Amino acid sequence: MATFMDVHKGFVGVTDAQLKEAHAADLAIEGEEGVHFEKAWLDPESGMVFCLSTGPSKEAVMRIHERAGHPASEVYEVPITV
Amino acid sequence: MATFMDVHKGFVGVTDAQLKEAHAADLAIEGEEGVHFEKAWLDPESGMVFCLSTGPSKEAVMRIHERAGHPASEVYEVPITV
Repeated sequence: MATFMDVHKGFVGVTDAQLKEAHAADLAIEGEEGVHFEKAWLDPESGMVFCLSTGPSKEAVMRIHERAGHPASEVYEVPITV
Repeated sequence: MATFMDVHKGFVGVTDAQLKEAHAADLAIEGEEGVHFEKAWLDPESGMVFCLSTGPSKEAVMRIHERAGHPASEVYEVPITV
């Protein structure tokens, strides 16, 4: 199981409730790919979202985000944390 | 006090020990600007680092990273989390 940080762009003006809804859409199907979305941070001014997850592969993370309706712009495996 | 996610590029091949050392350099001076660096995630393959902090402003976060020897490429205020 690896850890990933993915980046979404274009979430300008998105509210707390909308971010919760997007996250819930991931959580509803993440188990099908063995992924778990831990946390997300949104800057509604720039529209950037940073999303922390665990799962078997980058591709699995991307597939869940795509199917939930918000494909990630970038996904990075982050094996080193401090 | 606000929450920030900043992004560093160019940390290709950086090790766990080197990331810890970079983080320690931030921690050593962060109090001078009222900043606290909470956590960082590194992808040594792409060289991307994502760094979560709290502090009074983006500028304060950037100043600490600069003075510690690793200026951030981007800093985002992330008031909304899930």
